[in-house]
Amino acid sequence: MPDTTGPLLIVGGHEDKAGEAAVLRRLVALAGGTRAVVGVVPTASADESRAVATYVDAFERLGAARVEPLFVRSRWEAVADWDRRAGAVTAVFFTGGDQLRITSTLGGTRFHAWLRARHREGLVIAGTSAGASMMSDVMIVEGDAAHTPTLNTVRLAVGMGFWPGVVIDQHFSQRGRIGRLLSALAQNPAVLGVGIDENTAVEVDFARRTFRVLGQACVTVLDGHGIRATNASESRPGQPLALTDVVLHVLPAPWEYSWANRTPREPEAAPGTKEGEA
Amino acid sequence: MPDTTGPLLIVGGHEDKAGEAAVLRRLVALAGGTRAVVGVVPTASADESRAVATYVDAFERLGAARVEPLFVRSRWEAVADWDRRAGAVTAVFFTGGDQLRITSTLGGTRFHAWLRARHREGLVIAGTSAGASMMSDVMIVEGDAAHTPTLNTVRLAVGMGFWPGVVIDQHFSQRGRIGRLLSALAQNPAVLGVGIDENTAVEVDFARRTFRVLGQACVTVLDGHGIRATNASESRPGQPLALTDVVLHVLPAPWEYSWANRTPREPEAAPGTKEGEA
Repeated sequence: MPDTTGPLLIVGGHEDKAGEAAVLRRLVALAGGTRAVVGVVPTASADESRAVATYVDAFERLGAARVEPLFVRSRWEAVADWDRRAGAVTAVFFTGGDQLRITSTLGGTRFHAWLRARHREGLVIAGTSAGASMMSDVMIVEGDAAHTPTLNTVRLAVGMGFWPGVVIDQHFSQRGRIGRLLSALAQNPAVLGVGIDENTAVEVDFARRTFRVLGQACVTVLDGHGIRATNASESRPGQPLALTDVVLHVLPAPWEYSWANRTPREPEAAPGTKEGEA
Repeated sequence: MPDTTGPLLIVGGHEDKAGEAAVLRRLVALAGGTRAVVGVVPTASADESRAVATYVDAFERLGAARVEPLFVRSRWEAVADWDRRAGAVTAVFFTGGDQLRITSTLGGTRFHAWLRARHREGLVIAGTSAGASMMSDVMIVEGDAAHTPTLNTVRLAVGMGFWPGVVIDQHFSQRGRIGRLLSALAQNPAVLGVGIDENTAVEVDFARRTFRVLGQACVTVLDGHGIRATNASESRPGQPLALTDVVLHVLPAPWEYSWANRTPREPEAAPGTKEGEA
């Protein structure tokens, strides 16, 4: 049976909204273009109304048929019959803010179950910044960026589980976050570290077990499968981590990465679109 | 014939001077302990007198026999007979500041030739911050830290050449500099990237082609030999770099790294010094 799971569009924060808006434009296209019905979940944001207004404007400008604010402010609201309330959505977009607000409000609710069921049937799920971090099973909650990786550089929590097997970080190069992603990786090298820059996204294709990069900057992939030594189990909090043989890839658009084969690949450009050698 | 080249002690900046001062203490030990005569070269520093005073105090407190300020403010001064003027030094330490002040003032002078000749005979050469960057053949002069690596993220210049085959960066985790070191590596994966954190150092042993880490934090090694793809020769300035299959190690003290074998190694602890499992 083919995998019908919908794509994820995971954005590193600060995506362009007023200009070319390549990343958000892609979300509208994935959601059906002029037939797209985009639900916006502002649960992460401190000012939910403002976050909703920003994205309603953006998605309407980019040609979505309809944008539906999905206010879920409490676990009590999250138990509603979401299929009745928002059954028409073709994509759901999570705004930025605090990823713990998403997981603590929505985790394990009927809303969460509804999203997971619809996702398996093809619903597009997208999110930016905090809305990116929460996509995985285990998410980074906070971590000191400007220091050497240590065991307590990073605080982890349970994410929403739309993309198992990875740990995602956002605002990645802009906030110098490789230390905290390495720190998460050291504790269990089985996960794949995916660091997404601002105005940049990964589009996850579950059928092909591949993601591709889109947007302005890069995605940093940290593959810990070859790690020969880590002191994560021995080190006392605050002690510097030791970590060897991590494989690192820095991938701009339109590069792809297959997490089945653990290999990056640059798709061949259409003839005539690539510059010749000088 | 055995390699008689002296060790290098390369410090990532902001080393402890008033407390335990493990890094500077090691320099005094390498230089002969109570027989150490440490020359301090403040050429990189904006306030040379203050830089000299700081390190004279530190090295005297740590038990050096003598500390000699080596003021070389111009290429004209650099042509002096340094063997006569400073022949007794057992180590030379370069202060921090601007690495281009070191190379533009001292590069190719009689002072430089004297240092290289004495280094081959066993003189210890050390430096912190700018005094660390200038150690290699090619050095990083400046580079934007908080951005995605691009071809013009980093500006390179010719260093003093005491340690060929590497590119060194300092204040590494503290200033989020992995992007600029990757950018340097993308342009020629033959070099080994060595990123040194603050209050941390590498001690380079030429006979064993190995360095070891000492001090408080970590050294990040970026090995580009396995890079399968980089777009450094195609990309326009400002375009994001693509870079695959870099091997990354994060090494705290007392780890070693052999650049002959390209492998990190944790020296076995003496019996009884390592904590047992819980």
